[in-house]
This record gives sequence, structure tokens and C-alpha cells, in this order.
Amino acid sequence: MSRYLKKAIQEIGPLDEKAMASARERQDSLTKPQGSLGRLEELSVKVAGIRAEALPTLGHKAIITIAADHGVMAQGVSLYPQEVTAEMVRNFLRGGAGINVLARQVGARVVVVDMGVASELEPHPGLIAKKVAYGTRDMTLGPAMSQEEALRAIEAGLEVLDQEVAKGLDIVATGDMGIGNTTSGSAVTAVISGKTVAEVTGRGTGIDDRQLAHKVSIIERAFEINQPDAKDPLDMLAKVGGFEIGGLVGVMIGAAAHRIPIIIDGFISGAAALIATGIAPKLKDYLIAGHVSAERGHRAALEHLGLRPILDLEMRLGEGTGAVLAMVIVEAGVRTLAQMATFAEAGVHEAKEQIKATTD
Amino acid sequence: MSRYLKKAIQEIGPLDEKAMASARERQDSLTKPQGSLGRLEELSVKVAGIRAEALPTLGHKAIITIAADHGVMAQGVSLYPQEVTAEMVRNFLRGGAGINVLARQVGARVVVVDMGVASELEPHPGLIAKKVAYGTRDMTLGPAMSQEEALRAIEAGLEVLDQEVAKGLDIVATGDMGIGNTTSGSAVTAVISGKTVAEVTGRGTGIDDRQLAHKVSIIERAFEINQPDAKDPLDMLAKVGGFEIGGLVGVMIGAAAHRIPIIIDGFISGAAALIATGIAPKLKDYLIAGHVSAERGHRAALEHLGLRPILDLEMRLGEGTGAVLAMVIVEAGVRTLAQMATFAEAGVHEAKEQIKATTD
Repeated sequence: MSRYLKKAIQEIGPLDEKAMASARERQDSLTKPQGSLGRLEELSVKVAGIRAEALPTLGHKAIITIAADHGVMAQGVSLYPQEVTAEMVRNFLRGGAGINVLARQVGARVVVVDMGVASELEPHPGLIAKKVAYGTRDMTLGPAMSQEEALRAIEAGLEVLDQEVAKGLDIVATGDMGIGNTTSGSAVTAVISGKTVAEVTGRGTGIDDRQLAHKVSIIERAFEINQPDAKDPLDMLAKVGGFEIGGLVGVMIGAAAHRIPIIIDGFISGAAALIATGIAPKLKDYLIAGHVSAERGHRAALEHLGLRPILDLEMRLGEGTGAVLAMVIVEAGVRTLAQMATFAEAGVHEAKEQIKATTD
Repeated sequence: MSRYLKKAIQEIGPLDEKAMASARERQDSLTKPQGSLGRLEELSVKVAGIRAEALPTLGHKAIITIAADHGVMAQGVSLYPQEVTAEMVRNFLRGGAGINVLARQVGARVVVVDMGVASELEPHPGLIAKKVAYGTRDMTLGPAMSQEEALRAIEAGLEVLDQEVAKGLDIVATGDMGIGNTTSGSAVTAVISGKTVAEVTGRGTGIDDRQLAHKVSIIERAFEINQPDAKDPLDMLAKVGGFEIGGLVGVMIGAAAHRIPIIIDGFISGAAALIATGIAPKLKDYLIAGHVSAERGHRAALEHLGLRPILDLEMRLGEGTGAVLAMVIVEAGVRTLAQMATFAEAGVHEAKEQIKATTD
């Protein structure tokens, strides 16, 4: 592990209790029954603690979508051909994908990263080239990547995050693109959550029962060959992970080090969060679960992380689409905290009980 | 019932099947696994059917927040004094309430209506004056309003909606403000859903167990005195309803007549929807449940309406706050439908099975 990565991990501190207490107190003074904004209030307090600001603002928003390919595709685990990863990266760069549409709507910039697409991508001003290799190796034949490559992916993710901080970044969402990557996601989720492979393996892009049984058997074979160690997150990433998963681990570590709230997207981001919190346990406090994916196994990952999703819209697209929609809800919490009038400012009577309590 | 109201009810037609089929077909051609945007896809198809447009847009968004007071406040059913209704209307007009902050965030205009606030409100360019009376009468002593007043409230709501259509309106959210109005909401919900009063009566602004038992007994007394008829929605509105509830019924009828999607907010909007669908059953297809409120009883109302909420954020503020946040999700559905590239446009391979199916 490089000094650069070690330093980022060490910089992750606890939430700022003072900012949180101040935000909580302000929430209770705003013109509404106490607690009536529900999770919006809770999210505003959490963001205050993360940002160490009593009244945080989220002017600069980004979604970092990392793409990579998977050697396990040789085993036939997806309905889509591998070229789709590169084709979708080009779609991102032209602004035609789901994540582009939703990011435009919520006012977030999309940061597209090639961390390991299997083909050569032409240079593009909107593409950050961080290719570790031309896809991982087939995990049914041995480790998907070397430990050195796993570290390189994490550090590359950290570099991307640092560059975005330099441009201004108050909140980040994580996204992924990689045909075949739910196979990696299931493998990581099974080992860390302690569930069986069948319990956390879903239909990805839409495979049928027979294909699902095949996918489960492929992951079980990868476990036999590799014997990934649940207690060693880096080992797990190398043996059954993916470059985009490693990159997202780096993004999460960097964001937590900079006190930036991280909205995780679906199944792949969840797997990355399982590894990231294994490497840097303190970053758990910086995570916000954007949504629960329709992909089987995501709930198990969120439960293991102790996170409650904001949205449940039966989405399973990846790219960061669920996370970027949840950004609106997080921002709604922060905006109501900062912009709503207090009872005193608005000249509105408070609840009778409260008034009694203070005048008795 | 005036000819104006009758005409609006008659104008409510079925959803446009052709527009829905076209939207569904386009969703399946976009660069994502089929169905992977989950409820966003479903919402986009519904809005297409409502608007009778294959590619609807939601440029003009409004939240109509109707305020009124409740005579049952004399029985001590809320923690807040009645003046708060008027004070909150002033807060709306100054832009300091929760609904103002959230509407600014999502780009919707807030339409504030006085349908029956108990005090004189000074004229304001942002306030639509439609006062039917200075609050309802105490429903434990007799009907909350006359049938004529109930109709006047509905027609006033319809007028408000028509005026907003003239300004441009593609989607509308419903909101309410009225200290004591969850008592009316519970009464309406209990009678129409067939649940007991205790099952659908919640803590409103935050009352304790003793106060909750009192609130239940007050509603039961109102039922004994008034004997509201579950089969006669207008009778119910008059006996145990409120002017804001009647106004929202009119807004919903008008919106459905104009083929405008209606995002209903929490408990009070739910009660209004129960009455509105009783008067005009066809408008059910035009309703979208923005969120499920933390207020007990809202789930029963949504179940009776056959609606699945978009958000579940433990909110219970009213004003339209849950509905306006859900507007973002509905718009996300419509925007992805219109703006995402198709597989053909983006030169992205489709799923292998599909390609086989078309070339076999």
C-alpha cells in the first residue's frame, strides 16, 4: 500500500458531533412539527456531521462512474456481449445514457473513468483514462487480478476523487459500468456478508432461471479455485473483484478523507463499500445508501453495512442512477435545514406543550 | 352540483392506450436492460397515458397548497393553536416554509389558497382568496359544513386549477395546511376505507397516548352525531371534512379533466382523493401517490385507492412536501423516456437473446 493511500485512510476522522448537535437544534426550531420531515432531517444532520458544518451546502455535486470489463464473461454470465461496456462508455461521453439524463436533471456532473475496459477507448476530454488492464482475468481460472493491480485500481480511484475535489466537490455519488460485473458483486457480497452464493446472486441484466443457476455455479467454482479470505478485503478484491469495484473503493476512501458525503448506488457500489469499510472501517459514517436495487443481494450488502436506503424504486441499471436521484433527497434535507424560517423568524406559534415547558 | 363541476367530471376520460403503448415500446429500445429503471419506466408510461402524448414533458409544475381551519379544534385535538394556520399561510407567502424550499429546489411554483382560514388574511399577490367560511363548524356538534358549502369548496378548487392551467400546467401536486385537519382526515379515511377510527387515527403534529385516545373519542362522537354515509362522498365531506379537503377534491377533478397528472401528498390529500374518486371514479387513473406519510392511516387510504407510494421517508409535514419531492422521480421517468439514446442511436449491442429472437 502506497503512502498516498495510507495517508488518505489515516485522514478519515469521526463525524463532527458539534455540527450535528447544532443542525439537530436548528431542525427543532424550524416552522414544522418536530421530526415531521422524517429522514430529510436525519440526512441533514448526518451531512452536517460529515462536512463539519452546521449549515452545509451542496453546490458542487458529481457522480463518478467507473467502467471496467470482467474476464469471467468467458463463462457466459450475461445476456450482453462484452463490447457493450465500451459502447456504453461512449454513450456516457455523448450524454445519451440514463446517468447523463438524471445527472442533468439534478445538476450533478458525470465523471466517466476507464479503469479497465477490454478495448482501446479513443481519447476524449470527458474520459479519465486510468486503465489498470484490458479487463480482469477469468476468476474461475485464478485470481481476477494481482494484489498489485487491486491496489493500483484503488489508488487510481483515489486520484480521480482528489482531482474532482480540486474542481469543487461537496457530495459524490458512485456508479459503475461493466458487463458481467454482478458476478463479481455477488462473489464479494457472499463472502463478506456470510450469505450463500445463491442468496446474493441475481439476474443482472435479466438472465433466466437456467442462466442464474449457471452464474451461481461459476461463482462457487471461483471460490474453490481462489479461496478468497473474508477477513482480507484486498485479497477478496484481487481474487473475485473488478477494476471498477477497486476504483470505487478508492473514491470512497478519498471522499471520506475529504469529509465529502458518499451516496452509494446499487449492487456494485454496495460490494465496493463492503471492501472499502473492510480497509477503512471509519468511512462507514460517510456512506449514504441511495437506493435498494432490485438486484438480489443488495439488501444483504446494505444490512451488513448498517445502511437504510433512501429510495426503493425497483431500479437495477447501475451507472449511479439510483444514487444520483437520491442526491435530490439528501439535498432537500440540507436545503430545508438552511432555508426554512424558524418559528421566531416567521412569528409562528410553537406547540403549546413546548411553550409551557419553557415558561413553567 | 353546478354545470361547471358536472362538466369537469364528464370530461375525465380514460388513459390514452396508444400513447402508453408507444412509451412502453420506446422504454424497451433505450440503452439499458429492459425494465432496469423500474418504477421510473412505469411512471413514464402512466404520464404518457394521462397526457395522451408518447413523449410528455413536464416543464410547468405547480403545487397547490390549500389552507383552512377546523371547528373541531374547540375539542383540543392538536398541540398547536389555531392561529398557526394563518401564520403558516404568511410563512408560505414569504417563502419560508418547507414547501417553499422544496418547490424552489424542484422548480415548481407554489400556489397558496385560503379556502377557509379562521381569520382575515391581508390581501397578497401570491394568495388566492377562496374563503368559503371562517373555518368549519365543530363536527362533534353537527355537520362541519353545509352541503352547499362543500360544493362551493370543490368548485373553488376547480376554479384554482383552471386558472393554473391558463398559466401553463403539466403536472400538479396537492398540499394542505390546517391545524386540526388530521382529525378530519382520520374521519374520512375511517368511513371510506371501512377501518376503525383507532386504526386510522395518528399523532398529527405529535400528540401523546392520552391525547390520541381523546382524538379517537372525538371522531367517534362526530360519527354518532352526524352518521356520515360512506356511499355519499359529498355527505361525508360536509359532515366530517374540511374546506381544504373539498378544495383539493376540486383540484383533482379539474386536473383529471385537463389530463394533468396529480401527485397526491400525505394524509389530507389521501382523504381528499378518497372523496374525489367517490365523486368521479375515473380520476383514479390520474393519481400518483407521492409518498406514504408517517401519519397512521395513510397506508389504509393508499391501499383503498390502489396506489403504491413513490417515497417512504417518514415525513408527516403536509403542505405538499412529500408530493413535490416525488415530482422529481416522476420527472426522472419522463426525462429518461425522452432523452436517453436508443440502442440503435448509440450503436450499442442489444441483449444476445433479443438479437437471436429477431433474426431467427
